[in-house]
Amino acid sequence: MWNTPSGENWLLIHLNLIFSVITYWLTISLIPKFKRRFIQKNLFGFDLHKVKGPKIPEAFGFIVGLTYLVTLFIFSAIAFRQSILRDHNCPQKEFVESVAGLLCISCMLMFGFADDVLDIPWRYKLLLPSIASLPLLMVYYVNFNSTTVILPKFLRSTFGLSVNLGIFYYVYMGMLAVFCSNAINILAGINGLEAGQSLIIALSVCLFNIIEMFGEFWQPHQFSLFFMIPFVSVTLALLKFNWCPAEVFVGDTYCYFAGMTLAVVGILGHFSKTLLLFFIPQIFNFLYSVPQLFHFMPCPRHRMPALNEEKLLVASKVAFAKSELTLLGKFCIKILKIVKLLDSRESKDIMECNNLTLLNLVLIYSGPVREASLTKILLLIQVLCSCIAFTIRYPLASVFYGA
Amino acid sequence: MWNTPSGENWLLIHLNLIFSVITYWLTISLIPKFKRRFIQKNLFGFDLHKVKGPKIPEAFGFIVGLTYLVTLFIFSAIAFRQSILRDHNCPQKEFVESVAGLLCISCMLMFGFADDVLDIPWRYKLLLPSIASLPLLMVYYVNFNSTTVILPKFLRSTFGLSVNLGIFYYVYMGMLAVFCSNAINILAGINGLEAGQSLIIALSVCLFNIIEMFGEFWQPHQFSLFFMIPFVSVTLALLKFNWCPAEVFVGDTYCYFAGMTLAVVGILGHFSKTLLLFFIPQIFNFLYSVPQLFHFMPCPRHRMPALNEEKLLVASKVAFAKSELTLLGKFCIKILKIVKLLDSRESKDIMECNNLTLLNLVLIYSGPVREASLTKILLLIQVLCSCIAFTIRYPLASVFYGA
Repeated sequence: MWNTPSGENWLLIHLNLIFSVITYWLTISLIPKFKRRFIQKNLFGFDLHKVKGPKIPEAFGFIVGLTYLVTLFIFSAIAFRQSILRDHNCPQKEFVESVAGLLCISCMLMFGFADDVLDIPWRYKLLLPSIASLPLLMVYYVNFNSTTVILPKFLRSTFGLSVNLGIFYYVYMGMLAVFCSNAINILAGINGLEAGQSLIIALSVCLFNIIEMFGEFWQPHQFSLFFMIPFVSVTLALLKFNWCPAEVFVGDTYCYFAGMTLAVVGILGHFSKTLLLFFIPQIFNFLYSVPQLFHFMPCPRHRMPALNEEKLLVASKVAFAKSELTLLGKFCIKILKIVKLLDSRESKDIMECNNLTLLNLVLIYSGPVREASLTKILLLIQVLCSCIAFTIRYPLASVFYGA
Repeated sequence: MWNTPSGENWLLIHLNLIFSVITYWLTISLIPKFKRRFIQKNLFGFDLHKVKGPKIPEAFGFIVGLTYLVTLFIFSAIAFRQSILRDHNCPQKEFVESVAGLLCISCMLMFGFADDVLDIPWRYKLLLPSIASLPLLMVYYVNFNSTTVILPKFLRSTFGLSVNLGIFYYVYMGMLAVFCSNAINILAGINGLEAGQSLIIALSVCLFNIIEMFGEFWQPHQFSLFFMIPFVSVTLALLKFNWCPAEVFVGDTYCYFAGMTLAVVGILGHFSKTLLLFFIPQIFNFLYSVPQLFHFMPCPRHRMPALNEEKLLVASKVAFAKSELTLLGKFCIKILKIVKLLDSRESKDIMECNNLTLLNLVLIYSGPVREASLTKILLLIQVLCSCIAFTIRYPLASVFYGA
């Protein structure tokens, strides 16, 4: 029989829960206090889906990120002091994991805020998150350095039980951090969506962690819960103010912060592959966006849904001369038409099609809807995908991988 | 005979030196690129000591802080990989110290930038740095937890060889981090001063570390050098653009970043008391400012030197009704007059005196000077104080403490 979590471990989770509740109240009392200051300091935007909207303060991810970090700083100090008092020895590995995780998160929070303030050019947007994830990879290298991946049954006769990916596993983890940070940022554009999707992913991770707490390898999942519960609480607080009609915008700050926090628990909790299962809508949205993001097809500056005359949201379109299309662009359009993921209209030289985002795709199938309804549909999709993820992770995995 | 640093240890210091040179070039190429962007995004100020000056971009401490962090991330990854390859084991203690140090620095950098962008209220300015220093204190607790202070000879007959300060030592270290961050910020206001003083303090720390590298307890000093050499290089790069007439301002960002970086090496390098010796001008300036900072005497919004008709700097004055003075204020004025640290003029009800900063005090004794000359005088004072610090630390300490 394996070593199960002791009463003290559960106690710490309860303590974390109490901290998170306090943080929630703290955050919802802080957000209104800073609204005017953000607007005064030119950190605001206009809601493109409202008619004649007021100035809405931007980058409020920074406030929730700050309360999150403060909570975890204080919680970690108490948790580690507790375990030192008990064992007369510090769990160095867990300690360095916490500190490195917090380092990555604080770097991303800073970077996101700088992006909201300064509009950082794209080349830095990909470079800096990769460097910010270095401490995480170093800790992984120092503490585990396990780069072996178990293969599914049907591959084992050819490649063996497992394959050691070596350096590629580190490249994958570094890319995971960059992917998570940006994936949430591109499935965005309507009130409540960034915070809502992060909330559902975080709750799915929590559920997964709680299930695994009863298994043999519970320790990394306890670690993950310590990071996830306060994240859920600050996200809930942010959502209260960001839900349609939004009083504050979350900004790139929140997207980067949320993405990195999820990547940190995925990597240090050893469930980076399961984590990706919770990102199915984001992965789909990213792949679907590739033809525009990589400029195989024309990409306008904003791809978010448009408002029709009845003030309902409809899919936004992009029109272009057919001659502008690259060969790869033509190929993408052909494929997208076949799988019915494109709403297009053609005249002699001009082509018009929807912008390639999940939001526009949903609008094509749903028809015009109100903004809050679109957010709800998207969040419902996220919940369904989490159900699929759990199905893949549990019943299906045992079919493919054995018990 | 004790364990001396091996060739490999010196090699790492040379590697760090090479990294720092590269960082210097990177930083001086990055700063001009971001100047226009900062101004566009409303991060600029006007030089109050120039006539009809242009907009000067503010908060460039952020750019140098970022290149500093990137350098240390990459350097640490290489250094620790090296020692793992050699010993097949990670030096966990050093590793967690590096990560925690970087966490504190990145938090302070983020916080400083937020302060430049948002003008954070004072109560948060004292609270957040204390919380940001928590990881540092945790690491100190986990790795050393030595809170014993050796007493000088003349106290030993009464109190014994040493005294254990316990929790007070942690309070002292937490306050050290807050003090360093704010001390540089209040000895400021003329071009080149913030970066200049930090440079001299950092060079003094480097010299001290190099001397101690030949002693018994060289390891923490090697750690300190790893953090200090890149700091010197980014500060030099910043100074190149901040020297009079300044092309960029350093912002609170730089002051907080510099203060925390120095506090980190002082605490984790176990020389927090020696570090304070290098802060003599800042400590004097802080104590001298106390009557105004704590409102025993009237305190105008800006206390920096004023320009006279010949465009030279002179001490700025504050005038107030004598009845405004608190009892404590009257007492401070009396003391300051006795020790000749106040230039005051009185009529029946009104009193006028210089603002209580080291800059104004120097100007009272020097008479009107050009801005660059004042910076040079201040930096000269900083160098002299470092000489005094070394005298206290070496010849005098052996008199007071024995060999």
